[in-house]
Amino acid sequence: MDQLFTKLDKLYDEIVDIRRHLHEYPELSFEEVETAEYIALFHEKLGHEVRRNVGGNGVLAYLKGDKPGPTVALRADFDALPIQEQTDVPFKSKNDGVMHACGHDGHTASLLGLAKALNSMQSEIEGTIVFLHQHAEELPPGGAIAMIEDGCLDGVDVIFGTHLQAQMPLGEIGYRSGPLQAAPDRFDIKILGRGGHAASPHDTKDSIVIGGQLINNLQQIVSRRINPLESAVVSICNFEAKNPYNVIADTAEMTGTVRTFKEDIRSFIEEEIERVIAGTCLVSGADYEYTYTRGYPTTVNHEEETNFLAALASSVPGVEEVRETPPVMGGEDFSYYLQHIKGTFFFTGAQSPDNTEAYPHHHPKFDIDERSLLIAAKALGTAALNYAKKYQSATNAS
Amino acid sequence: MDQLFTKLDKLYDEIVDIRRHLHEYPELSFEEVETAEYIALFHEKLGHEVRRNVGGNGVLAYLKGDKPGPTVALRADFDALPIQEQTDVPFKSKNDGVMHACGHDGHTASLLGLAKALNSMQSEIEGTIVFLHQHAEELPPGGAIAMIEDGCLDGVDVIFGTHLQAQMPLGEIGYRSGPLQAAPDRFDIKILGRGGHAASPHDTKDSIVIGGQLINNLQQIVSRRINPLESAVVSICNFEAKNPYNVIADTAEMTGTVRTFKEDIRSFIEEEIERVIAGTCLVSGADYEYTYTRGYPTTVNHEEETNFLAALASSVPGVEEVRETPPVMGGEDFSYYLQHIKGTFFFTGAQSPDNTEAYPHHHPKFDIDERSLLIAAKALGTAALNYAKKYQSATNAS
Amino acid sequence: MDQLFTKLDKLYDEIVDIRRHLHEYPELSFEEVETAEYIALFHEKLGHEVRRNVGGNGVLAYLKGDKPGPTVALRADFDALPIQEQTDVPFKSKNDGVMHACGHDGHTASLLGLAKALNSMQSEIEGTIVFLHQHAEELPPGGAIAMIEDGCLDGVDVIFGTHLQAQMPLGEIGYRSGPLQAAPDRFDIKILGRGGHAASPHDTKDSIVIGGQLINNLQQIVSRRINPLESAVVSICNFEAKNPYNVIADTAEMTGTVRTFKEDIRSFIEEEIERVIAGTCLVSGADYEYTYTRGYPTTVNHEEETNFLAALASSVPGVEEVRETPPVMGGEDFSYYLQHIKGTFFFTGAQSPDNTEAYPHHHPKFDIDERSLLIAAKALGTAALNYAKKYQSATNAS
Amino acid sequence: MDQLFTKLDKLYDEIVDIRRHLHEYPELSFEEVETAEYIALFHEKLGHEVRRNVGGNGVLAYLKGDKPGPTVALRADFDALPIQEQTDVPFKSKNDGVMHACGHDGHTASLLGLAKALNSMQSEIEGTIVFLHQHAEELPPGGAIAMIEDGCLDGVDVIFGTHLQAQMPLGEIGYRSGPLQAAPDRFDIKILGRGGHAASPHDTKDSIVIGGQLINNLQQIVSRRINPLESAVVSICNFEAKNPYNVIADTAEMTGTVRTFKEDIRSFIEEEIERVIAGTCLVSGADYEYTYTRGYPTTVNHEEETNFLAALASSVPGVEEVRETPPVMGGEDFSYYLQHIKGTFFFTGAQSPDNTEAYPHHHPKFDIDERSLLIAAKALGTAALNYAKKYQSATNAS
Repeated sequence: MDQLFTKLDKLYDEIVDIRRHLHEYPELSFEEVETAEYIALFHEKLGHEVRRNVGGNGVLAYLKGDKPGPTVALRADFDALPIQEQTDVPFKSKNDGVMHACGHDGHTASLLGLAKALNSMQSEIEGTIVFLHQHAEELPPGGAIAMIEDGCLDGVDVIFGTHLQAQMPLGEIGYRSGPLQAAPDRFDIKILGRGGHAASPHDTKDSIVIGGQLINNLQQIVSRRINPLESAVVSICNFEAKNPYNVIADTAEMTGTVRTFKEDIRSFIEEEIERVIAGTCLVSGADYEYTYTRGYPTTVNHEEETNFLAALASSVPGVEEVRETPPVMGGEDFSYYLQHIKGTFFFTGAQSPDNTEAYPHHHPKFDIDERSLLIAAKALGTAALNYAKKYQSATNAS
Repeated sequence: MDQLFTKLDKLYDEIVDIRRHLHEYPELSFEEVETAEYIALFHEKLGHEVRRNVGGNGVLAYLKGDKPGPTVALRADFDALPIQEQTDVPFKSKNDGVMHACGHDGHTASLLGLAKALNSMQSEIEGTIVFLHQHAEELPPGGAIAMIEDGCLDGVDVIFGTHLQAQMPLGEIGYRSGPLQAAPDRFDIKILGRGGHAASPHDTKDSIVIGGQLINNLQQIVSRRINPLESAVVSICNFEAKNPYNVIADTAEMTGTVRTFKEDIRSFIEEEIERVIAGTCLVSGADYEYTYTRGYPTTVNHEEETNFLAALASSVPGVEEVRETPPVMGGEDFSYYLQHIKGTFFFTGAQSPDNTEAYPHHHPKFDIDERSLLIAAKALGTAALNYAKKYQSATNAS
Repeated sequence: MDQLFTKLDKLYDEIVDIRRHLHEYPELSFEEVETAEYIALFHEKLGHEVRRNVGGNGVLAYLKGDKPGPTVALRADFDALPIQEQTDVPFKSKNDGVMHACGHDGHTASLLGLAKALNSMQSEIEGTIVFLHQHAEELPPGGAIAMIEDGCLDGVDVIFGTHLQAQMPLGEIGYRSGPLQAAPDRFDIKILGRGGHAASPHDTKDSIVIGGQLINNLQQIVSRRINPLESAVVSICNFEAKNPYNVIADTAEMTGTVRTFKEDIRSFIEEEIERVIAGTCLVSGADYEYTYTRGYPTTVNHEEETNFLAALASSVPGVEEVRETPPVMGGEDFSYYLQHIKGTFFFTGAQSPDNTEAYPHHHPKFDIDERSLLIAAKALGTAALNYAKKYQSATNAS
Repeated sequence: MDQLFTKLDKLYDEIVDIRRHLHEYPELSFEEVETAEYIALFHEKLGHEVRRNVGGNGVLAYLKGDKPGPTVALRADFDALPIQEQTDVPFKSKNDGVMHACGHDGHTASLLGLAKALNSMQSEIEGTIVFLHQHAEELPPGGAIAMIEDGCLDGVDVIFGTHLQAQMPLGEIGYRSGPLQAAPDRFDIKILGRGGHAASPHDTKDSIVIGGQLINNLQQIVSRRINPLESAVVSICNFEAKNPYNVIADTAEMTGTVRTFKEDIRSFIEEEIERVIAGTCLVSGADYEYTYTRGYPTTVNHEEETNFLAALASSVPGVEEVRETPPVMGGEDFSYYLQHIKGTFFFTGAQSPDNTEAYPHHHPKFDIDERSLLIAAKALGTAALNYAKKYQSATNAS
């Protein structure tokens, strides 16, 4: 491994440059055309076989080792979010209203740096490494499902992936066997009131007032109707009722997300939201539209591969602590890969030691310590190279 | 008067055509460039002296009678609203998101038709008639105040104006001495929470939830804190917290209006809104921004001119009922004219007899019975022509 | 009149003593047995003919003048409220949880003092004066309706009554022709949730949470659904959900009142409350019980008698200002008398000049300036004595 | 064990009779004088040494085996709740407003039956069995802490206790090592508004409306401010604002409970509740009083004793399933015993197979399958008799 670590250390500046370039030119989910081309060209320059437009904007690159061995996929996602960046970094987003506020720029830069390092070690590599660059992780139905349908896992034996965590200290690796990330569903509500002149509320059904009550009433689902020993989130993230200052809102639109780990609670909340909407609209005699869209399934890590990764992680330079992480309420379409093949998804700490009040993911001031990119690259590389050995012994044993 | 009524009857089709043309091409307050030009050209074609760009997009046209007499101003406003029309009329708005949803197209068509009718009666007209075409009535600070500063009332003795009322039966004229329309103020609120990932509400201060509570809490000002014998409206008309479905709102913006008739209640509500915001934000530890902008003053009709108009109104063909109207909560910048000179503002019923469920003003399906345009023109014309007589006798008497 | 005023001035200390005695021993509506007996004995001692138990605890006393004339009724109510007094007066209520917090002790003391004064003027009195001591004004159906059925107005030509007003300055008399006091209705709501252990909210339907939403949602009726030019009050005054600290409420009970001046608004609110309850309960899948009980009708003063009273009032010693009062939202079963015979109900200011922050009626710290009792007695006496003259001339004229 | 089981089977009818007797005469926490006497007499009749008034109404009874061995305490609580029973059972509570709605009658009947069975096996019993009858489990500070101070655990080696669970199927035993039951705290809130006449809300600060907002706002603590992966409950169980229908509430009182497993979350909620109250009162300019009283600590079972019990449980006749139970949010002052000596607290299923919709604990219709009493007695007896053996071998080994 030392050879890989040394090579990556030398590539650190380039990895940072790649990350900053991607950060300056973020692209929204399903619109990541230039980012995909950037990735494809990078691999082609290294001489890797490349497949473009896999299941959409996905990119696959293959590094075939000179020695026989398993096929290991390493995944990084590369889409950004519809957020207006509010940081002061010199490489701030140049695309108005779009931001890498979840670290996918770092994921991609790590994987490209690792690809370059491994490329120069071809003679020692056992088996094939698949660089799985996935688009559209942030927006269901996501890129994973389409890439799988388009064959991205064909012949792959195992998959590894990591997520940089802005609020986990640099130097930590978090693993968890079993359910790691929640099922992230989406709901859309439209309140159909009756607009009118702001001075005559009695001639209207005020959609904003109805919306205000609905926001309040929905809080009860989590506070009163879910077993407190279970986990669930109901968040209303978007509320739009755009009107002149003197026109009462005819309609109001709300969009939000539900996070759960269990199927029965998921279904219960889907129904309860509608009950709350129906009652709240009845109060004012208004109508409504409601759609509930199921997102990714729960991300369930495979036990053996998780333990394999956890055992290796402490040997990665820069890693000071490896620990079992609690599950998180955020969803991940890495979940689909794990429904098809073995693998594990883990967390890489990216909170700078001197940044004691790091902003959360999806915040306009989100930021990461770039040294985490090097740790992520080393951890994924370690997993890939060691898996061949594990695989061989397993194959021999059987 | 019969001569005037006959002329106007003949012009009815043209008045309707003008109104429909204006309806198809509505322009927002302070942006009514083409409408103003249309009006100016119409008057120029009649040979009237025209002043363009009075206090902005305002237009003044002068018809000087051959006989001596007073100067009477007749006012019509011509701006439209930022509303997406939802009617099925063949002359539906062609300007996306803009609509004549308050009848100003009708006001203008009426006044232009009346100008054409009076133009042919020049030899009999005593004094001068000023056609005061005002822009920007819908958006404070409004057009009236700037037109006055720009001299629109110079030399004017009296002013009359009317508003078509979509929910007052066709054939009715409503008058009221003293306070007729409320003071319409505007408030802007910005909730400064803390955004973040929808799956981690505990790391955020959810601006939408705070906004929901605020909407609810603001209801109490009217329901609990204002003397029930007094009139007041607090309407939140705009709520914007635009985010992806999985990002908790960092901020939420609300805009609304307050309507009052009395200065002490106006000031009380201005303060109470802030108290409610401060408490609601304290609940969640959030910050806020709040601005309160005073709009037009209360519209106070002069007693003598109001009685003069009311007495004449029943002789106008098409008018079946003349009655004292209760005050209305909507504001009007006609109020500024009445602070400078004598006059009155009255209502002309425009609800079609077969339309029992007329939509209110500012509604996307707002509509009027076009026969009301003819009544409005006749009523204003009657007032203008008779005022000369009243004026003469008053002058002689003194 | 001077003779009457002098007599009353001499009786002032006794009037105050009576008031303080009544204040110390308040009795709830329909339970005023001792108060009634006190009143009856007082009149019997004066030699007045007395009828006890009129329509319940009501008392009638008759003073027949030596001269012929009309029959004038003067009404005072004498029940108290279920409020725990919080003042520090030496004559504080000795009946736990019961308080004269609306001034009925003062009304009664005034009328008894006046009775004593008039009693000594029998030879000059024209006609009959009926001292109408009414029980149960505070609690619908009230005492008036039963006293009327029991004949209290038989042969009566006119009725006068006054209410001491704790927040109207001493020295003021307020009159109003037409609607003076609102129709005060009552509603009772019971939320039928599902109780359970406080640690398992998901197994319950939390009646207190539903009640909290209901309180909030009901605010909208006044703030959004009533024409702001009209007057209406919806107050929830009682909320009971008594449980141990660790038992979620199975039910919650709420009681309140609606005040309106117009029948259509009254009916509208009755229906809207149920709509709001139904929707709010649907949100949580709970059931409910709802009853709406109509209280007294609107109190409508007769124009001629009101003007008569207003004209006399300024001559009453101690009266510094007589003015038209705005209507008030509180109800009065004096309304029933006015449905049967002519009369007027007026207000007597009772706020001490040095008490700038007087507590409102029905407050545990309610208090009055006792000098108002003298003014009330003089005003009622003036009305009674003058009415004979007015009546004679009217009779002669016809 | 077979001997014990046979004896208990024969005592089943008597156990049921005892339970029904206790159910008919429930007594509130700290007032259980007659129940305590009943228990003491029962043991005295068996010839057991009895200590009355231990730490209040607690009762201790000692059965000394003829053979040497450890001292094992078996605990049953015997207080009832301030709930009005709504069942139709023939042995329904005869004490108005008091009910055994948590199964303590069953706990006590089980332990008394077991005492009688074991009494007849004295010659075979190794060591001493302490029947620890605890008063006041439902009301902090609870009876346990005072009984401990009064020496109830002196010389005791281990303690076992069980709770009948109305919503766990008959035949199930639930065990859990580590945290089993939450810390149940209590809070009291008093809103200090300003009362007044229901018709004049603007002269008041309506404590019921403020309370309604507070109920709503408090929902957010759980729904938005607690990490969704953690468990917490905030329940408002009592709300009292008792007033006549036409008097706006001067004050409103609320009482509730908080349930948590972790100290930092407990403290956080204590502070957040006050923040929510402060903000909500600021909205209306009202004051408040707030007290937060910490209840029992978290109930933490000892691992070795829990495993010991779990291993034995499956051999108890009637037990069909033994499983690890999730923690529960309800508190237990059994927690204090476990802070002093070893032991475990477990659950005994009491839901009848044909009662698919059992009411929760603390519900007015709470009920249990009485066969669970026999299972509980057998399980506790098995634990007590086997512990001697375990203890001996442990002692010998050391």
